[in-house]
Amino acid sequence: MLKWMSSRYSLDVFFYPRNVAIVGATRNPAKPAYYITENLVRLGFTGKIYPINPNANEILGLKCYPSLEDVPDDIDLVISLVPAPATLNVVKESAEKGVKGIVVIGGGFSEGGEVGGELEKKISEILRKTGMRLLGPNTLSPINPSNNLIVSFRGMKELKKGSLAFCFQSGMYEPKLGWIFNGLHLGVSKIIDVGNKLDVNEVDVLEYLSRDDETKVIALHIENIKGDSRRFMELLKETVKKKPVIIVKGGRTSMGAKASLTHTGSLSGGSYTIFEAALKQAGAIHAQTLEEFFDFAKVFEFLKPPAGNRVAIITLSGGEGVIAVDCCEENGFKLAELKKETVEQLRKVYPPWNIPSNPFDMGPCIEFHGNAKVCKTALDSISRDENVDCIVIQLPAFVPPPELDEVVKSFLRLKEVGKPAVIWRATMGRQEDRIVEELERNYIPVYPSVERAIKALGKLYKYKVFLEKVEGKT
Amino acid sequence: MLKWMSSRYSLDVFFYPRNVAIVGATRNPAKPAYYITENLVRLGFTGKIYPINPNANEILGLKCYPSLEDVPDDIDLVISLVPAPATLNVVKESAEKGVKGIVVIGGGFSEGGEVGGELEKKISEILRKTGMRLLGPNTLSPINPSNNLIVSFRGMKELKKGSLAFCFQSGMYEPKLGWIFNGLHLGVSKIIDVGNKLDVNEVDVLEYLSRDDETKVIALHIENIKGDSRRFMELLKETVKKKPVIIVKGGRTSMGAKASLTHTGSLSGGSYTIFEAALKQAGAIHAQTLEEFFDFAKVFEFLKPPAGNRVAIITLSGGEGVIAVDCCEENGFKLAELKKETVEQLRKVYPPWNIPSNPFDMGPCIEFHGNAKVCKTALDSISRDENVDCIVIQLPAFVPPPELDEVVKSFLRLKEVGKPAVIWRATMGRQEDRIVEELERNYIPVYPSVERAIKALGKLYKYKVFLEKVEGKT
Repeated sequence: MLKWMSSRYSLDVFFYPRNVAIVGATRNPAKPAYYITENLVRLGFTGKIYPINPNANEILGLKCYPSLEDVPDDIDLVISLVPAPATLNVVKESAEKGVKGIVVIGGGFSEGGEVGGELEKKISEILRKTGMRLLGPNTLSPINPSNNLIVSFRGMKELKKGSLAFCFQSGMYEPKLGWIFNGLHLGVSKIIDVGNKLDVNEVDVLEYLSRDDETKVIALHIENIKGDSRRFMELLKETVKKKPVIIVKGGRTSMGAKASLTHTGSLSGGSYTIFEAALKQAGAIHAQTLEEFFDFAKVFEFLKPPAGNRVAIITLSGGEGVIAVDCCEENGFKLAELKKETVEQLRKVYPPWNIPSNPFDMGPCIEFHGNAKVCKTALDSISRDENVDCIVIQLPAFVPPPELDEVVKSFLRLKEVGKPAVIWRATMGRQEDRIVEELERNYIPVYPSVERAIKALGKLYKYKVFLEKVEGKT
Repeated sequence: MLKWMSSRYSLDVFFYPRNVAIVGATRNPAKPAYYITENLVRLGFTGKIYPINPNANEILGLKCYPSLEDVPDDIDLVISLVPAPATLNVVKESAEKGVKGIVVIGGGFSEGGEVGGELEKKISEILRKTGMRLLGPNTLSPINPSNNLIVSFRGMKELKKGSLAFCFQSGMYEPKLGWIFNGLHLGVSKIIDVGNKLDVNEVDVLEYLSRDDETKVIALHIENIKGDSRRFMELLKETVKKKPVIIVKGGRTSMGAKASLTHTGSLSGGSYTIFEAALKQAGAIHAQTLEEFFDFAKVFEFLKPPAGNRVAIITLSGGEGVIAVDCCEENGFKLAELKKETVEQLRKVYPPWNIPSNPFDMGPCIEFHGNAKVCKTALDSISRDENVDCIVIQLPAFVPPPELDEVVKSFLRLKEVGKPAVIWRATMGRQEDRIVEELERNYIPVYPSVERAIKALGKLYKYKVFLEKVEGKT
C-alpha cells in the first residue's frame, strides 16, 4: 500500500503519484501547456506519464490516449489543462476512472463570477461523493524535486532538492521558479499553489507539511484562511514546535482584500492587526514583504540557530559597520567582546594606530595586506573565538582573481566551525556573483544588504529563544 | 575670478579645481594609491595634474615633482596620500604654497586616539590662520563627473553624469561606486565623503549642494552633526523647498553610536526618535535602510512626481497584484478606476470569463496572446487613461527573444506619456538584466521587489504633497 493511501487527509497523491495523466496535452511548443508534459519527460519524473489528446497518437515519444478511460492502468493523478467549461467533464471522467487526485490549472471559476461559481459547486459535489481530491482551480503546481514531478508552463533547467516547502495562494512564484533554485539557491522539498482552494486549502497543506519528513522549513503565502481558521491556528502552534513556519500575507489592507477576491474568488478576511498578533502568539515567523519571505526561508534552510546572541561583525567600511551594529541592537543581538588572543591575531593585519575591535573593519587592512590574508586572519580567528555565537560578514568587493580562491576558502571554513554566519554583499555587481554562488551552494547565505542579513539572522535567533521558552513551559 | 573664490564658504575648490597636486603619488599599480593618479589620467580630469614624489621623475606620463614648492604654478587642490604623522607637514607646505583646499585620505587621526587628536588640533590651527579648507581626514572623495575629477582607490570604468549628489560620512560608498553607475544606473553630480570632518562637515556640504545648480537631488548619509545642528535643520528646511533631500542615519542605537566614535572619532549623538521627528518636520525624505537610501535616490533622480495619487497596477500574477494593492494603500495611493475605453482595449487580450480591472493581471493574457501584444495593449491604454496618475508595472519574465524589442519599446513609450511609472522585477535573474539596463538608461526605474517600487513612488508623491502644503502656506 502506498503511503498516501493511509490517510483520508493526506496530500501524498499530489506529490507522490505513481503516474500522471495530462488531459489536454499538446505537441505544440508555442503553447505554454506544452511544457507541462515536456518538463516531466525531460527532467525525468519517476512515475508513468499518460498524455490525453484525441487528436494525437504520440507526444514527446509518449503514447497518447484519446480519453482517460482508454488508459490501460489505474490513474493516481490527473492534470487538467482544459478550459473551465470543459473541466466538469474531466472531473466526471476522473471520478469514473477512480482517479485519486486532480489538478485543475485553468482559471475562470469562482473568480470569474456566477457561472464559474456554479461550476465549482457541481465539481465539489462529485468530490464529496467520491473522496477524490482536487488542487486548484487556478493553480500551477505541484512540484516535488525528489521525484521530478513538476507542473509548470516554463521549461525548467533543474530542480534543487532541499528541505524547504512553499505554499502559495497564487501562481506568483511561477515566474520566480528558476530564480528560486539558481539565483536564491534554495533547496525545495515541495511547492504547492492552492489557487482557488475549491478543495485542498491552506489548512490541509499545513497539516500535510507539518508531518512531511522531507520538509524542515515551511513557507506560506496566504491571502485568507478558507478552511477552519481555528484549526489552522492550532496546527500552526503545534507545527512551529517541530519546524519553523514563515508566513507572508497578501490582502493586508481593505483595498488589497478586495483585489484578492477578484483573483482567487476568496475574500481575504479579518483585521491584519489581529492576524499579526495571532501569528506572533503561535510562534510563526512573520515576513512583512516578499523579500523578507525569501530572506527568512533561506536563513532557516541554510543555518542552525546560534547558541547565543553575541555577534561579531566583519565589514569593509566603518560606515556600514555602524549600520550593522544598529541592526544588531534592533534585532536582539549584543556585540561579542573579542578574546585577547583574537585581538592579537587581528592586530597583525590592522593599521598600527588603532586596536582591532568589533565591528572589525577590513577596509584599511585590505589596502595594506590584500583580501586573501585579511579574510583568512579575520574569519579564522573571529569564528573560533569562544565569545562569539554568530557572525555577520561583508563580502569583499573587487577581489583580484589570484586571491579569489583563497578568499572563498576562508569563507567555506566557516562551515567547519559550525557557528551561523550570514554574509552581505557590498554591491549586486556580477563580479561577486561567482563567490555568492559558491558560498550558497555550501549553505552560507548571502544577502543583498546588511539590514536584510541581520534581520534574517535575528529571526533565526528569536526562533531558538521561542523554542526554549516553549520547552521550558512543558 | 573663479566661481569658488566668490564665497568663503564655498566648497567649489573640492569639485572644480583648476589643478590637483597628488602628494605621495606612486607608480606601483599594486598599491591602491596608484589609482588616485591613474583614474584622473585615464578618465581625463579636465584640469592639470601634478604628481609629487621625490623618488620619481614621471608618473603615468606626467612630470613628477619632488615637493609642492617645486611646482611652477599656483595649486588649487592638494590630495594627500601620506600617513597620518607626515600629514601635518603636507598641510604646512600647502599653506605656504597658498593652496586653496586639501584632501586628507589617510586614517589614524582622532579615530586613532590621543596622538591623532593632537595632530588634528595642530592642523586646525593652520586652517584657521590661512583659510585653507580641508576635506577628511579619512576620506575617499571628492568625485565630480562633470570634469572627471575622481579620488578613488579603484580603477573606475566611467562616471555617469547626472543630477544626484551624495554625501557620506564614511568610505562605505566606495566599494559600491562602480555599481552606483553601472548597476543602479544612477547619474551623479557630486560625491563627497566628509570622513572625520576636521573642517568640512555636513553643514557646509548641505549649504553648498543646496546652492549647486548641477544638483537636483541630495542624498546624505550621516552619523552625527558635527557642525551647528540648528543651522543644519534650518538649512534642511530651506533646501527641501527647492530640491528633495534623502537622509539615512548610522548610529541610531546606543551600540551603533559607540561604534561610530571608533571609526570617525565622532560620537553620533542624540535620540534617534527626536532626529526622525526633526527630519519629518523639515520635510526631508528619511530612508530607514541603505537599500531605501538608493531606492529613493533613484526615484527622485529619474522621475517627476505624479499629479495625483490614482495608481494603476500591471502585474504578472494575481498574488503579486494583491500585495501591490496593499503597498499602494499603505503608501497613500488609491486604485485608479479605469475608463470604459481603457477596459475595452484591455478586454482584447483578457480571458473571456472576466472583466479587466485594476490591478491588471497580464499573466493569463500573456499565456494566450504573448508578451509583445499584451504589453503594448496594457501599457499604451493604461498610461493614456486620464483617470491614471501613475503606474506600477511588473516586468515580464522569460520574454522570448523575438518579442523582446517590442516589449522594451512598449515600456519606453511610457516616457512619451510623461506619467511616472515604476517597474518591479519578477526575479533578479540575468535574463531580465538587459531590459532593466535599457529602461534605466532611459530613466525608467526598476526595483527588485513590488514593495520597494511602490515605497519609492510613495516618497515621490508625498514630497509633492509636502511642497504643495509649503507653497500654500507662503
